[in-house]
Amino acid sequence: MGKKVAVVLAGCGVYDGSEIHESSAVLVHLSREGAQAEVYAPNVDQMHVVDHVRGQPTQEKRNVLVESARIARGNIKDLAKLDVKGLDALIIPGGFGVAKNLSTWATQGKNCTVSKEVEDVLKAFHAAKKPIGLCCISPVLAAKIFPGCELTVGHDTECEKWPYAKTAETMKELGCKHVNKHVTEIHVDAKNKLVTTSAFMCNAPIHEIYDGIGKMVKEVVRLA
Amino acid sequence: MGKKVAVVLAGCGVYDGSEIHESSAVLVHLSREGAQAEVYAPNVDQMHVVDHVRGQPTQEKRNVLVESARIARGNIKDLAKLDVKGLDALIIPGGFGVAKNLSTWATQGKNCTVSKEVEDVLKAFHAAKKPIGLCCISPVLAAKIFPGCELTVGHDTECEKWPYAKTAETMKELGCKHVNKHVTEIHVDAKNKLVTTSAFMCNAPIHEIYDGIGKMVKEVVRLA
Repeated sequence: MGKKVAVVLAGCGVYDGSEIHESSAVLVHLSREGAQAEVYAPNVDQMHVVDHVRGQPTQEKRNVLVESARIARGNIKDLAKLDVKGLDALIIPGGFGVAKNLSTWATQGKNCTVSKEVEDVLKAFHAAKKPIGLCCISPVLAAKIFPGCELTVGHDTECEKWPYAKTAETMKELGCKHVNKHVTEIHVDAKNKLVTTSAFMCNAPIHEIYDGIGKMVKEVVRLA
Repeated sequence: MGKKVAVVLAGCGVYDGSEIHESSAVLVHLSREGAQAEVYAPNVDQMHVVDHVRGQPTQEKRNVLVESARIARGNIKDLAKLDVKGLDALIIPGGFGVAKNLSTWATQGKNCTVSKEVEDVLKAFHAAKKPIGLCCISPVLAAKIFPGCELTVGHDTECEKWPYAKTAETMKELGCKHVNKHVTEIHVDAKNKLVTTSAFMCNAPIHEIYDGIGKMVKEVVRLA
């Protein structure tokens, strides 16, 4: 019997939702590992809607669950209905939606709050010793909720290849251990069953991001 | 030097735009083949916007170029600016957007019109003997524009695995030769340099769709 893995989305599009290619890679790799994905998203308004051509917010209003359903091809459930009992693992892809719709990291950094629903879900999997896979910006959720845990968001020194390296520094200030890793590598915090990879935190060819996420998914399923 | 491949999108989401996972798979495989993707979409209103939770149209208005930019992470151009001279091949992923925003196939079937911009682009690549890759529903564009060509949209007998098999019959009525293929296979029309694969026309695990698209992309790059 394949493992059942909850995938929590935060909208549809890198600048205001879940990063589309990371989300797709998670679903493709889960399928290849013989695992069953159950996709969830919170039924809340997005922080805002970004025009992805201009990179600027618009006046529109969109709902996180409804937009996430585009990635899930309609096969999605309200995050409020997630029950950790019937699930073997949790994966949260990246994208600014994690920092805007699942938490307030985008505006408040280390002083952010994680939405109660998302915090409850993360704590439930953690308490049940079920593995949690995070990529790109989503490790900040664990940095905030599980102080002292080990994570990677790639590298901690800013350069053209690692434009968001300051995130690693901020996570260290929250008390977690940041481990530098290449985009095709993962870090495993065995004690906390956390598996992380940098994905689009790295300015890398998209197939390398796909491969890094593949390693993350494979390890999450193995630990489940 | 890597080949330059135009990828034409039709929005963002299976029911009113480009199928997200097919589009992502095209970009991942192009990257792995060392090719450079240039993403384009028409700067026109979507036929309609579908709520992907309920599967029903809403009252919203969205623009095909702006929504496609979500898949392209902002790196996208107006289809009107596409110049076949600087490009080596063309790929159009599937999704209902192809039948709603690039043509009127969704409402008119074999009597549809293909939007002038899309028809011009297809004819330009064809005339220049540059390869064209199509998947899922997008082969109907070739069926309409290049009568007598050889294509696959999977199988021509409807069943649980092939819920859209009638599309193959309609394409035959337009005068093209339909070749039955499994979801992980492609068909190559060598004379017309058309490479097609069924993708989500098949009710298959998502990693098989990813693999079929991989073969399509690889062959398109090889022919370029």
